[in-house]
Amino acid sequence: MATVRTPDPNPGWLSEYALSETRSRVPMLYVEAVPVRVDPLGAVEHVGVLLRATETGEMSRSLVSGRVLHGESVRGALVRNLEKDLGPTAFPQIPASPVPFTVAEYLPIPGVSPLHDPRQHAVALVFVVPVAGECQPRQDALELSWLSPEEACAPGMLAEMEGGRGVLVKQALAHLGVLPA
Amino acid sequence: MATVRTPDPNPGWLSEYALSETRSRVPMLYVEAVPVRVDPLGAVEHVGVLLRATETGEMSRSLVSGRVLHGESVRGALVRNLEKDLGPTAFPQIPASPVPFTVAEYLPIPGVSPLHDPRQHAVALVFVVPVAGECQPRQDALELSWLSPEEACAPGMLAEMEGGRGVLVKQALAHLGVLPA
Amino acid sequence: MATVRTPDPNPGWLSEYALSETRSRVPMLYVEAVPVRVDPLGAVEHVGVLLRATETGEMSRSLVSGRVLHGESVRGALVRNLEKDLGPTAFPQIPASPVPFTVAEYLPIPGVSPLHDPRQHAVALVFVVPVAGECQPRQDALELSWLSPEEACAPGMLAEMEGGRGVLVKQALAHLGVLPA
Amino acid sequence: MATVRTPDPNPGWLSEYALSETRSRVPMLYVEAVPVRVDPLGAVEHVGVLLRATETGEMSRSLVSGRVLHGESVRGALVRNLEKDLGPTAFPQIPASPVPFTVAEYLPIPGVSPLHDPRQHAVALVFVVPVAGECQPRQDALELSWLSPEEACAPGMLAEMEGGRGVLVKQALAHLGVLPA
Repeated sequence: MATVRTPDPNPGWLSEYALSETRSRVPMLYVEAVPVRVDPLGAVEHVGVLLRATETGEMSRSLVSGRVLHGESVRGALVRNLEKDLGPTAFPQIPASPVPFTVAEYLPIPGVSPLHDPRQHAVALVFVVPVAGECQPRQDALELSWLSPEEACAPGMLAEMEGGRGVLVKQALAHLGVLPA
Repeated sequence: MATVRTPDPNPGWLSEYALSETRSRVPMLYVEAVPVRVDPLGAVEHVGVLLRATETGEMSRSLVSGRVLHGESVRGALVRNLEKDLGPTAFPQIPASPVPFTVAEYLPIPGVSPLHDPRQHAVALVFVVPVAGECQPRQDALELSWLSPEEACAPGMLAEMEGGRGVLVKQALAHLGVLPA
Repeated sequence: MATVRTPDPNPGWLSEYALSETRSRVPMLYVEAVPVRVDPLGAVEHVGVLLRATETGEMSRSLVSGRVLHGESVRGALVRNLEKDLGPTAFPQIPASPVPFTVAEYLPIPGVSPLHDPRQHAVALVFVVPVAGECQPRQDALELSWLSPEEACAPGMLAEMEGGRGVLVKQALAHLGVLPA
Repeated sequence: MATVRTPDPNPGWLSEYALSETRSRVPMLYVEAVPVRVDPLGAVEHVGVLLRATETGEMSRSLVSGRVLHGESVRGALVRNLEKDLGPTAFPQIPASPVPFTVAEYLPIPGVSPLHDPRQHAVALVFVVPVAGECQPRQDALELSWLSPEEACAPGMLAEMEGGRGVLVKQALAHLGVLPA
């Protein structure tokens, strides 16, 4: 008798086991976004940084971030992760071009590269995303803080950024022409 | 008796004579914009092209374009020229980054470079600008047409573009990842 | 008695089975390179295209291309694949910046996107790489042809490019400012 | 009797008077270059900074910089100014793409923008240029120092950079992915 196979209700998602096995085999593709608030001429005034509780209960700061699923477009992954982290009323302006402002490489061994992810070798396409609406962080993010370029580059703030992502914030500000002198 | 000098009501603007003299001396800095309509995921669906009447009464197609004035920021020039060409209700999303997708060089002698401007040597910083509102072309522009990437790249359309700007439209579509195969 | 485990002589490489399983789970990260010859002012004169024999014995044209291995940097993968495809005396000028000129998305289902790879969902970071030395295609590549921008954009040539990569060649030429009008 | 007009031996160059008049009328177009030394994989190891004596005899640090002349291409201006500042044996790798990594805006009034030029409103297209040969600074440049990213970003060094150009060095390092954390 033929077994009827129900289609995967969540294509692209992997079991914990398959995900961990895959992470040991290939670099994992991520998208990350630096949310920004712009003035009427389009110049960046504030950068959005998420406050998260880590698994051990510590606080750390992060960016919008998530994996690109099998069969999902980079653009689709960006939209999905922005909605996951900023809520449904953020009204992000997804970049018209697929070119990221930087490519971030996370290695599992600490100290080898400025960016570090203990779980895996990850490569992230990083985008700046202007956000016009109201942000309501969801899931594990507790709060979204809007920081001026000076506040975002304060040494204390950069040190709190998860996995060395402070350098991505500085790269974003440099790309936008608003890195503090 | 002291003469009271009224401040220049139009700083940055030059008389016809001064403008023509300046044009013979240095390259003139321009900004240009390729207006686009995007879908909810940010992917480009249509490109905006202006229909203008030239001085000799012929029709030609063009992009949003204008000079950067003395003392004016590149961003300010972009906003001013978008409003001049698309009207006050276009609601353009000015790029957060000052980096253009290409630099266009117009030479006064035809045939030397793909881009040509009989009046001057001009160098334009060219940006892609998503437009969310209603466009009402002003001044000498008669009409704004929204074209699909395929329509914009049709040979007849490209040939009608003023000064060889058809190549800029193709470069914009390539940068956006939607150049027809 | 303790078993002495010899270190993996080829870290990052996967068995056929593991590779095929992984391909069904996550998008695979690739690097691609468009080799170019430049004139003394750095302007691009020719684009390099590889002629390959496919598994079924047909001829097809391609770019330098390969997977980023687990633990390997994007830059390292670019260097390794350039040497694999162009030989050890090509003397490529690896880009100083990690930002690709475009991100290419290949889907396994034909017709969904302009780029197509029947084996997998692949995402490639695509770079332009000036090459100064002598190229000796290795492995399965039979020949490297240097084409002018006009030759590279001829419809016949573009149609021969594997997986729809003709559009990447046009995007590269557009980015370089030498796309034929 | 016909006057024989000798052709301008220095086309594009202007008299002091014409140059100063032009500077008061329009933004002046410049190119700037951040010279870099790269390792065999193309990653940036050092940044080149010029030591100059200013008109008042003070020392200041600067980048390769110069005006784009009337009729000259951006690429031509970049090559000419690299040779002027680094000498004939520097063997710079001129970028294949005309897109700068940033656009620098200098205003004549101090304090308005991070970048400042008391002589003029200038807009510079700024490029990263790998240099393979020996540099022999010419003209008014006394010395070229090769600095590590950490040395280049030391506060003392940044403060010595002419017109606020320290921010351009940091933007270049950010673009290259080697901005110190």
